[in-house]
Amino acid sequence: MKSVIAVYVENKYGVLARVCGLFLRRGFNIDSLTVSETEEEGYSRITLTTGDDKATLKQLVRQLEKLHNVKKVQVFNKETTVEHELLLVKIKNTEKNRSEVVAVASIYDAKIVDYTNDAIMIEVTASVSKLNAFIEVIKPMGIVEMCRTGVIALSRGNETLKDHK
Amino acid sequence: MKSVIAVYVENKYGVLARVCGLFLRRGFNIDSLTVSETEEEGYSRITLTTGDDKATLKQLVRQLEKLHNVKKVQVFNKETTVEHELLLVKIKNTEKNRSEVVAVASIYDAKIVDYTNDAIMIEVTASVSKLNAFIEVIKPMGIVEMCRTGVIALSRGNETLKDHK
Repeated sequence: MKSVIAVYVENKYGVLARVCGLFLRRGFNIDSLTVSETEEEGYSRITLTTGDDKATLKQLVRQLEKLHNVKKVQVFNKETTVEHELLLVKIKNTEKNRSEVVAVASIYDAKIVDYTNDAIMIEVTASVSKLNAFIEVIKPMGIVEMCRTGVIALSRGNETLKDHK
Repeated sequence: MKSVIAVYVENKYGVLARVCGLFLRRGFNIDSLTVSETEEEGYSRITLTTGDDKATLKQLVRQLEKLHNVKKVQVFNKETTVEHELLLVKIKNTEKNRSEVVAVASIYDAKIVDYTNDAIMIEVTASVSKLNAFIEVIKPMGIVEMCRTGVIALSRGNETLKDHK
């Protein structure tokens, strides 16, 4: 199980490079990372997944909080968090695959977003483990190419990253 | 209009920091960035959006291609690409908002993924411009918190980033 960390940062020159650089220097691996704007102008939100060793995590959070332009850091509690990810994947369009792709897509609540003679492109939004299961199912059909966003997360209810103690 | 760039990299220590560092040193802004694993073990795919000045882009691609562990770089052609992004957003749960949130969610093909007395959490997958339009619609209802993945992109048809010339 990976830990999901959100980092609320001022959208200033070099803050992303500083965050990545911290992980690099400390030898912590980043498994996925997304960064994008927030509800507040001038601020970005970095969501990343890394290993879940508790002592390491604590140290990491302390060091992240000290970085210039970093305002808030939160390690999510799986039980009170919605964590989702988006996958785009192209599967070979063969006679054999066609009906199976449509059936699997419907089971996973996935959408077919492009269809050519060569490839069928599918989009799925789900938890990381459900996306992994989906990929295992379609792998034997022949994955042409795929791209995942990495996970994003929000706490359930009214608590926000900015309020986080 | 922002340019979307995909960078295919060996999943080696420090490659993400190198890519971010290049943008930093050259003074190019990164508007969104996602990185995650691919269909090929040991390789990651970085998708990022940046400004669309053609001369700058050309220079940027050339410099990215020279970086250690970078295998391939592609600037997407909007007309032959599916570019999507995932948004999670919490809206205040008030008597006035409730029915309106459900109506707007249905129009945007969005899903309500959490519901408490304080907040309603919605998930939407769409193009960047459609997500921006959705955010404008719900803003007056009171956004508690939101998180976007940043865009991911795949070329339509059989062409892949690895084949890209």
